[in-house]
Amino acid sequence: MKIPRAISSLIESFEKLPGIGPKSAQRLTYYLLRVPQRELDDFSENLTNLKKDTVLCSVCKNVGEADPCNICSDNLRDRKVILVVENPLDLMAFERSGKFRGLYHVLHGAINPLDNIGPDEIYISDLLTRLTNKKSVIGEIIIATNPTMEGEATAMYLTKEIKKNLKEDIKITRLGMGIPTGADLEYADDVTLTQALEGRREL
Amino acid sequence: MKIPRAISSLIESFEKLPGIGPKSAQRLTYYLLRVPQRELDDFSENLTNLKKDTVLCSVCKNVGEADPCNICSDNLRDRKVILVVENPLDLMAFERSGKFRGLYHVLHGAINPLDNIGPDEIYISDLLTRLTNKKSVIGEIIIATNPTMEGEATAMYLTKEIKKNLKEDIKITRLGMGIPTGADLEYADDVTLTQALEGRREL
Repeated sequence: MKIPRAISSLIESFEKLPGIGPKSAQRLTYYLLRVPQRELDDFSENLTNLKKDTVLCSVCKNVGEADPCNICSDNLRDRKVILVVENPLDLMAFERSGKFRGLYHVLHGAINPLDNIGPDEIYISDLLTRLTNKKSVIGEIIIATNPTMEGEATAMYLTKEIKKNLKEDIKITRLGMGIPTGADLEYADDVTLTQALEGRREL
Repeated sequence: MKIPRAISSLIESFEKLPGIGPKSAQRLTYYLLRVPQRELDDFSENLTNLKKDTVLCSVCKNVGEADPCNICSDNLRDRKVILVVENPLDLMAFERSGKFRGLYHVLHGAINPLDNIGPDEIYISDLLTRLTNKKSVIGEIIIATNPTMEGEATAMYLTKEIKKNLKEDIKITRLGMGIPTGADLEYADDVTLTQALEGRREL
């Protein structure tokens, strides 16, 4: 019994997605066999239109419907602060919190030598151009890359490059580290505890 | 910051799939933003063609490229035995083992009152018609539904219905239960151990 071509090629498409193994790909495909054709057509249309209906903002590299995006073109936002994130989902997380009213810069990744991703593969030089621009009024850069090996390496590289390229003083900050809300101290790892101690605040 | 329409609708499509939550749906969508358009188009095409290029075999209800499917129309297979499975992936598992040379019947689900799936929602009556057919030569039905609550309920219902509808004697069997190969006895649950003891064989 050979698997029909139509089925095996959809399985292959699913397998290419991150975090979806051969078993899940099979399960998803056989699930879709029982779904109305209309739903398959919708899904299919959403896929082809994904990139056609979105643009990368030429200023902050966020994905949006207009260029510049509606954050960069919003005059009510604080143009003196840029928060640097690895990807658009991180930006979305900050927007959801509603606590940041400055601008963003999306790197679309982090430096990761093991995956062959160097500084030139992500939007680092675009950030530097943005900062060295004569008309720039930026006073602070908040580096909000992930607290992983790759995120830390990117943060270090960025800090070095910004300091090297800019004559005047720009404040460079990194997100506060410590215990996340709702966490159980008992299960916190050593590094987190150390960072929480180092970052303690007076009450 | 509103999520662009093209992105949110693809996220919604992914969320409809079983086992994919809102977070994974977001991650998959943003991953696809970085993929070449050609790959998106392929994926999209595979989706729309999935059902157009496959048919349900009118005999065994398996999904294939022809009707009757290439198992039902294979004259070298033993037409006296039918193995009943819940879905096409189970059939594929038996085919991979290469140890079964009879015919199949795919129910496309199991009886599950909590999900409103009764005997009429799956292909049970089709199996009974197949058995009561005057030209039928079937001598054994192997019920290979899953060893879950739903699978067991389906097996019991099937046994009752087959015995009620058929005058002549058809052998009805259920897959052997016990310890799976490679398992660690230490972690086996009570029910499995009990079934393994009950099903012990002389050496």
